Amino acid sequence: MGLDDAATKPHEALAAHLAAKLGDVDALIRARMASRHAPRIPEVTAHLVEAGGKRLRPMLTLAAADLCGYAGDHDVRLAATVEFIHTATLLHDDVVDESASRRGRPTANLLWDNKSSVLVGDYLFARAFQLMVETESLRVLDILSDAAATIAEGEVLQLSTARDLATTEALYLQVVRGKTAALFSAATQVGGVIAGAPERRIAALHDYGDALGIAFQIVDDLLDYQGDAKSTGKNVGDDFRERKVTLPVIRAMAQADEGERAFWRRTIEKGDQQDGDLDRALDILHARGALDATRAAAIAWVAEARGALGVLPAHPVRDMLDHLADYVFARLT
Amino acid sequence: MGLDDAATKPHEALAAHLAAKLGDVDALIRARMASRHAPRIPEVTAHLVEAGGKRLRPMLTLAAADLCGYAGDHDVRLAATVEFIHTATLLHDDVVDESASRRGRPTANLLWDNKSSVLVGDYLFARAFQLMVETESLRVLDILSDAAATIAEGEVLQLSTARDLATTEALYLQVVRGKTAALFSAATQVGGVIAGAPERRIAALHDYGDALGIAFQIVDDLLDYQGDAKSTGKNVGDDFRERKVTLPVIRAMAQADEGERAFWRRTIEKGDQQDGDLDRALDILHARGALDATRAAAIAWVAEARGALGVLPAHPVRDMLDHLADYVFARLT
Repeated sequence: MGLDDAATKPHEALAAHLAAKLGDVDALIRARMASRHAPRIPEVTAHLVEAGGKRLRPMLTLAAADLCGYAGDHDVRLAATVEFIHTATLLHDDVVDESASRRGRPTANLLWDNKSSVLVGDYLFARAFQLMVETESLRVLDILSDAAATIAEGEVLQLSTARDLATTEALYLQVVRGKTAALFSAATQVGGVIAGAPERRIAALHDYGDALGIAFQIVDDLLDYQGDAKSTGKNVGDDFRERKVTLPVIRAMAQADEGERAFWRRTIEKGDQQDGDLDRALDILHARGALDATRAAAIAWVAEARGALGVLPAHPVRDMLDHLADYVFARLT
Repeated sequence: MGLDDAATKPHEALAAHLAAKLGDVDALIRARMASRHAPRIPEVTAHLVEAGGKRLRPMLTLAAADLCGYAGDHDVRLAATVEFIHTATLLHDDVVDESASRRGRPTANLLWDNKSSVLVGDYLFARAFQLMVETESLRVLDILSDAAATIAEGEVLQLSTARDLATTEALYLQVVRGKTAALFSAATQVGGVIAGAPERRIAALHDYGDALGIAFQIVDDLLDYQGDAKSTGKNVGDDFRERKVTLPVIRAMAQADEGERAFWRRTIEKGDQQDGDLDRALDILHARGALDATRAAAIAWVAEARGALGVLPAHPVRDMLDHLADYVFARLT
């Protein structure tokens, strides 16, 4: 892939358009990560915040505000808020996931990290709330505190759906909204709210973020069965090994014959996994069309996201958001 | 101790005076703990919230609002907010402390609890923010989001001061404000703010909560060296075994001769503790007057708390808060 190709990636076009504001967001994040009393806080957060993430969520807030003609600087505060909430969630996810995957083999280092991850995550949540309070918009506070509750609820729900083959698509969708879509939709919605956009446009921005977030997470779950570790950073089979019941498995279960149901019960419900089981799972997923069905679900949500944009006025940023929706699939190559 | 004695305990007099409001707080807490999608949430929180805690923090908010003549119902929302923040903090503390004290011997049950504790704690934080947003008071939001940041910062700071004999009293005080006093002072302050009290009274309410919280935590740290497990529920020596550097140790270090310094370095910094070391620690603490000095510090903070009340108008609740400050020492008998 040449440099020219890279430069035309939709999230990079958006980043270029929002470059000045993104610089302000980064400066604000660094300033608010600091802690006079506890220097360990910026140490722990720096590797996450500075690690060169795509800043997708803050870009959504900045883009929504820009699209609605916003001229103030609260968009920068809200973009930093959204990134802080995201980072706090990642820190706490690490604790939850590390506990499971390294069970029985804890190290002092692991335990130290758990403590810091929990407490520094709490600090970032509190910092996020301080930042959003500075916008003095009760509606923004309402949207973002609701999003925080949905996120936490979705994470807890995920604990109960793991290993449960009776998980429905509706429950899966609820988990996906909590894990990903709630923050995407809050990010776009608050951009419209601080810009004072008409209700119809605020609703459209919410719907775009919601559908984009769902598509994003479904693709993430699909990548777990057909990704390329080199380009995605994800190892095929992690969800299978961690016995998560994601859309591919739900779709395969819906089509399963008796032998396949026994296979899923043994590997996912009982956790009795042997060499070759991941290959057998992939064979079943292909044979039952579960991966194609999962991809089709993501395509439908991308269409939903792009459809929501139709309500918004013609604007270069609207086109960038339109392209961004398609980019969800780029990781699937 | 007869029933009559029990009935005159200051926190029970306050609870009796605020009984109707406290009933509303409990009902609100139960309603907001519920989760349509994740029934595990109320399971995890119920044992903490319903366990018959003294509801000290919510009482402080209700008392402050009552004292300032408040007639609305936002005091109930704020009292529930404060209890949710406290409960979330306890859940996350469990993760942090369990990791340390059960190191090397994790159980699946422990790990499951850790996950739930982290995520349900996050849910309660988010619920707390939703509740405070409902008051539509930006000043209240400002105070409580600042308190949340101070709490998290104090907890992180405590990680760095543990095992560090160079911890100063100023640093110790910062940790104590984060662990306890920040929420006490926010609890009293927001009661005055929603009542629309004059600034001088709001400041006095803050100062009362701050000093009461500091006294409360200092006594807690003192109990760790001279408490009676039966009446306090605390085991003597937990902080020593966990190598926490609290005020008794700081005061003893300030007076230590070379042999004693070597003892503290071995037991607290290096963590090399043998049979008889707790007894030796207690001997040194007594010989160096460190426990008396710690008690004197708590007495000074109680005087500070009672002094702050002088600014407030004569009121039965003011007298109850005055008695409550003295009650801090009741656990020491």
